[in-house]
Amino acid sequence: MRILVVNPNTTSPMTEVACAAARQVVSPGTEIVPLTSNFGPASIEGYFDEAVCVPGMLKAIQQAEDYDAVVIACFDDTGLDAARCLTDKPVIGIGEAAYRVASMLSNKFSVVTTLSRSVPALEHNLLRYGLERQCARVRATDIPVLELENESARAYDKIASEIEAALRDDRAEAIVLGCAGMVELADKLTKHYQIPVLDGVTCAVSMCESLIRLGVKTSRKGGYAPPHTEKISVLG
Amino acid sequence: MRILVVNPNTTSPMTEVACAAARQVVSPGTEIVPLTSNFGPASIEGYFDEAVCVPGMLKAIQQAEDYDAVVIACFDDTGLDAARCLTDKPVIGIGEAAYRVASMLSNKFSVVTTLSRSVPALEHNLLRYGLERQCARVRATDIPVLELENESARAYDKIASEIEAALRDDRAEAIVLGCAGMVELADKLTKHYQIPVLDGVTCAVSMCESLIRLGVKTSRKGGYAPPHTEKISVLG
Amino acid sequence: MRILVVNPNTTSPMTEVACAAARQVVSPGTEIVPLTSNFGPASIEGYFDEAVCVPGMLKAIQQAEDYDAVVIACFDDTGLDAARCLTDKPVIGIGEAAYRVASMLSNKFSVVTTLSRSVPALEHNLLRYGLERQCARVRATDIPVLELENESARAYDKIASEIEAALRDDRAEAIVLGCAGMVELADKLTKHYQIPVLDGVTCAVSMCESLIRLGVKTSRKGGYAPPHTEKISVLG
Amino acid sequence: MRILVVNPNTTSPMTEVACAAARQVVSPGTEIVPLTSNFGPASIEGYFDEAVCVPGMLKAIQQAEDYDAVVIACFDDTGLDAARCLTDKPVIGIGEAAYRVASMLSNKFSVVTTLSRSVPALEHNLLRYGLERQCARVRATDIPVLELENESARAYDKIASEIEAALRDDRAEAIVLGCAGMVELADKLTKHYQIPVLDGVTCAVSMCESLIRLGVKTSRKGGYAPPHTEKISVLG
Amino acid sequence: MRILVVNPNTTSPMTEVACAAARQVVSPGTEIVPLTSNFGPASIEGYFDEAVCVPGMLKAIQQAEDYDAVVIACFDDTGLDAARCLTDKPVIGIGEAAYRVASMLSNKFSVVTTLSRSVPALEHNLLRYGLERQCARVRATDIPVLELENESARAYDKIASEIEAALRDDRAEAIVLGCAGMVELADKLTKHYQIPVLDGVTCAVSMCESLIRLGVKTSRKGGYAPPHTEKISVLG
Amino acid sequence: MRILVVNPNTTSPMTEVACAAARQVVSPGTEIVPLTSNFGPASIEGYFDEAVCVPGMLKAIQQAEDYDAVVIACFDDTGLDAARCLTDKPVIGIGEAAYRVASMLSNKFSVVTTLSRSVPALEHNLLRYGLERQCARVRATDIPVLELENESARAYDKIASEIEAALRDDRAEAIVLGCAGMVELADKLTKHYQIPVLDGVTCAVSMCESLIRLGVKTSRKGGYAPPHTEKISVLG
Repeated sequence: MRILVVNPNTTSPMTEVACAAARQVVSPGTEIVPLTSNFGPASIEGYFDEAVCVPGMLKAIQQAEDYDAVVIACFDDTGLDAARCLTDKPVIGIGEAAYRVASMLSNKFSVVTTLSRSVPALEHNLLRYGLERQCARVRATDIPVLELENESARAYDKIASEIEAALRDDRAEAIVLGCAGMVELADKLTKHYQIPVLDGVTCAVSMCESLIRLGVKTSRKGGYAPPHTEKISVLG
Repeated sequence: MRILVVNPNTTSPMTEVACAAARQVVSPGTEIVPLTSNFGPASIEGYFDEAVCVPGMLKAIQQAEDYDAVVIACFDDTGLDAARCLTDKPVIGIGEAAYRVASMLSNKFSVVTTLSRSVPALEHNLLRYGLERQCARVRATDIPVLELENESARAYDKIASEIEAALRDDRAEAIVLGCAGMVELADKLTKHYQIPVLDGVTCAVSMCESLIRLGVKTSRKGGYAPPHTEKISVLG
Repeated sequence: MRILVVNPNTTSPMTEVACAAARQVVSPGTEIVPLTSNFGPASIEGYFDEAVCVPGMLKAIQQAEDYDAVVIACFDDTGLDAARCLTDKPVIGIGEAAYRVASMLSNKFSVVTTLSRSVPALEHNLLRYGLERQCARVRATDIPVLELENESARAYDKIASEIEAALRDDRAEAIVLGCAGMVELADKLTKHYQIPVLDGVTCAVSMCESLIRLGVKTSRKGGYAPPHTEKISVLG
Repeated sequence: MRILVVNPNTTSPMTEVACAAARQVVSPGTEIVPLTSNFGPASIEGYFDEAVCVPGMLKAIQQAEDYDAVVIACFDDTGLDAARCLTDKPVIGIGEAAYRVASMLSNKFSVVTTLSRSVPALEHNLLRYGLERQCARVRATDIPVLELENESARAYDKIASEIEAALRDDRAEAIVLGCAGMVELADKLTKHYQIPVLDGVTCAVSMCESLIRLGVKTSRKGGYAPPHTEKISVLG
Repeated sequence: MRILVVNPNTTSPMTEVACAAARQVVSPGTEIVPLTSNFGPASIEGYFDEAVCVPGMLKAIQQAEDYDAVVIACFDDTGLDAARCLTDKPVIGIGEAAYRVASMLSNKFSVVTTLSRSVPALEHNLLRYGLERQCARVRATDIPVLELENESARAYDKIASEIEAALRDDRAEAIVLGCAGMVELADKLTKHYQIPVLDGVTCAVSMCESLIRLGVKTSRKGGYAPPHTEKISVLG
Repeated sequence: MRILVVNPNTTSPMTEVACAAARQVVSPGTEIVPLTSNFGPASIEGYFDEAVCVPGMLKAIQQAEDYDAVVIACFDDTGLDAARCLTDKPVIGIGEAAYRVASMLSNKFSVVTTLSRSVPALEHNLLRYGLERQCARVRATDIPVLELENESARAYDKIASEIEAALRDDRAEAIVLGCAGMVELADKLTKHYQIPVLDGVTCAVSMCESLIRLGVKTSRKGGYAPPHTEKISVLG
């Protein structure tokens, strides 16, 4: 199996971090193919960045070959619907994957993400997926995406403090970490708090393996019907 | 007042049709400024086209000067959230505008749009705006956007037949025409069926005039906070 | 254009305050016609007052002549559905207008109203309009309507303190002031908090101008079908 | 026990029919007190009639003495919230009562009412009570309220035909008859279709007996707080 | 009338407490028949206990004779749907009954229950009954069911403190006590807080009396269709 | 990996069919362990059967050893919450698994199940999982579970005819087969209709493999906290 892990922003070290995490959970024989968009913002923080990065990401997918599934490695599930039109291979967003895993392990979960400005976009996704009742609250730490790495100590503390608030005030039974850059903290936090603390990248690649083994494909009827060739050619 | 009417697809005759309709309803002294994206698909029919056209549309808005409000002249309200981050001037999508007008004139409305593949995107917008209960049904005529003009006779008949089904089966009290290209049919259908048959372009420019006169601006706190300058510079 | 601004309570100075605010935002040439009910309570604070004032308000509308639209100048949108049956001219409630404007300027808003006893009625309206997800919370200051004027200093402070709570705790991006009597505070609060702080009266008259220019009418099919003549004659 | 059965319209024979039905289901010793409004329309068909009749109905309740509970004998539950402010004795609408009984006897029910114009008002009530998912559909027979009596044969057939459609198309497991004037048909239809066919008047008086025996009262905190005396005096 | 009050756990003193409370509110001539399951857990605290006790409870109902209605005396409404398949006599759960009474007396209520682990099960019931908007919050005191009796002083204090939080923070207008073992506290708390504080057992038996007097039966069409005889024989 | 596939009914040939299908999709090295309840009904058709089979199923799980995840092989997801209390290993119901896969492959799906009496239970599950908007409709073929095998020709035709109705009338983009006994038809129907036609057993075992590889566990905080030992001992 070959799974594309597409980072819709242009910061390739973030792609590497995500792929390294992905490789730790996939089956022997599954190949993780990193893909970084070469047009768009350096990080995705809110509606504007999300929208701008999509054509670059779609082009990267369009040019890829011989893959069995696609993971969109941005917690906003940027361009998920558009990507599903481009290929009948399964496409999963890391936000979506983490939410769905959380809802199979708990009655209620909270999300801990980076910036407040990203919260409404995440809330819209949750509503669309039908998880607005199972997600108790989306909490922001207000650490910018690209500083997660640099200040990992402070990041850990801020995330931990939001998790504690979620357990106390939201009656959360599980936590979803709302940024691809938080992938390395999930295990440590799971052990510390003794509840599921989920990272989207690992959830998504693992879900992709399932869908590949099932042999299922994205429906081509209705909303995900393939675009006309000349429309695709716009990507360049 | 100067209102930008941005067509997110690259077909400038469609921009002209929309602007002509807009000019018929605005106050004396309101200037309608046509803007056509110069990157993206020739028409917008579903998720893929929607996503691809957004950066071109944002760039067109970014380069515009001295405007008081923006209308996004695509019924999918393509890139609406991203555009609201780019300027604190009011930004209204034509889908949104028509839905909100319909909900002030009726208890329940149905939408008549072009292709079936666009229906899920419209349903997601309705859910997000909180109008999923007031919209009885989104109906497709399956006439491609660019053929609306060419086959206007057949288009009228197909739309009329869906309106009749909506009155009979959906208990609709008003109709929203779900494509910028249908703007010229609204009056004729309103007179024929004696119910409000609404077109989004005219609703949106008229709503913009209201917001301009009120002196209100898009909130910069939270989801619509302005992106960092280097993010905007990605648009080129 | 002539727009009726109907105050459903019997306190005509409140009508004057509302009309003065309305006149500041309408286009040159738009006439604002004050109308005060002459049967009912002196202020509207909750379900009972709301219900009692409706026939008097409907009678005032019924006797009016040559108008193009109606604004119901009570934040509970008292008698809105009944008024829509009485005329095919657009009828807008000030609560409804402010909510819809807020939802075009922000992802989430909170309402700051007068008395706690009014909160459930406002929550029912929000649910009916489909805005229960976009309205984060309805907050009460517990200043009675008729004392808003007398103690404007204290009123300002209490309202400001609820706005601060809304920004901090509700993640509100905009505020709707929930009483016609608060119209004079909106500008000052908007400037101070640098977010949209909306008043319903100005939103409603401005929306009415839009609907008039669009030439649209309330649907007569279904729930807003005109009542039989003998039913109307009950108003006296 | 004394239960007021208030007919908010001014047609006293309808009050008598409702009270006769009520008397057949109450316990020995429960007194049914008929009350007919003396101001308002002769029948209640939609928003306008609903709104106009409320002050007259409230005055009738206000002048009544020595009662233990109030039934509002109009299927639109006209003025229910306002009446709950006027007294701490339980107040139940016949629509509400029938819906709640139906939801304890079935997974899903449909409503069969008189005129199409009344449907939106009923749908709003169902939403407010939280029963929009359990009510499959509100169906109209388009027989005017005051002709139910005159054309009882035709009425029975039309209602039966809507019940059959509800069983076939809505997957309804029970039926609620949506008009006080249909009370005499419930038993016959229940026997014929072998499913619960419920009438609101009997449901409501019986529910009132329960609440009286429980000794519970309407909450005076929040939305149902009693109005100030001078507000009540407006009723005359 | 004979009403079965079935305690789905095996602690018969709890059955007696419930029946004693029931007898205080029913009409003269109504017989309350206690029934205790003889297979299952000693108390019901969460999903596991709920599921395990159902066959024992169903067997107890199946063996009962000559009854007119059934009350399931566990606040989780354990096995309610299954019991409705077993008999066409009305079956009411005490949670359901208390919620429905609360929603006829208030705009919003909160629940005060025993253990945190029971909260998700109660929230699922509220969602299913359509009362997720009217219930402001389910609050846990974390007193185990079987200690309610022993430490009644401390129990009262903890419940009182949650009620105060509900009035202050949830804008609750009524309280539902979320455990059959709290039945004796309802009156005292109602008097102290001057709002409806409801116990499910008394609400349920009283509702049953209503349904019996109405002569209504559970629908046998659809979800509550009677199981085949050999399926019932599994109960032993 | 060892995955328990628990059939909550007592018909072991059905367990074998499910396990055979499961074995076709799992990774090499994954062991599928069949488990059939030895107490309860021979098939599960509706609320009653569902409730009766749970303790037997829980006992079977409790006695199993050395497993990594549990699949509940009944489309009603019978006893899912209770099973999650019994073990911290992932537990997935086949209904839940198929719905979640369908929602990653399509915008909207319909369910085709066996008996009408099962529909309300499935609808409650969908609501609880937040998928009531993504599931367009639950359709029944009215073929009893145990006759699926015997009359496979007729079964195929009836299912095919419901799928065609779903594509035409529900705007479904994918289909979920709503019974473990339909597992062998999924591939044939997928090929014929060229849309995803999903079977729950394969979806569930494949999802389990994902969760096992991720190393995640069911949360023990809140609703899925482990029951006290003496409660578990009730299972025998």
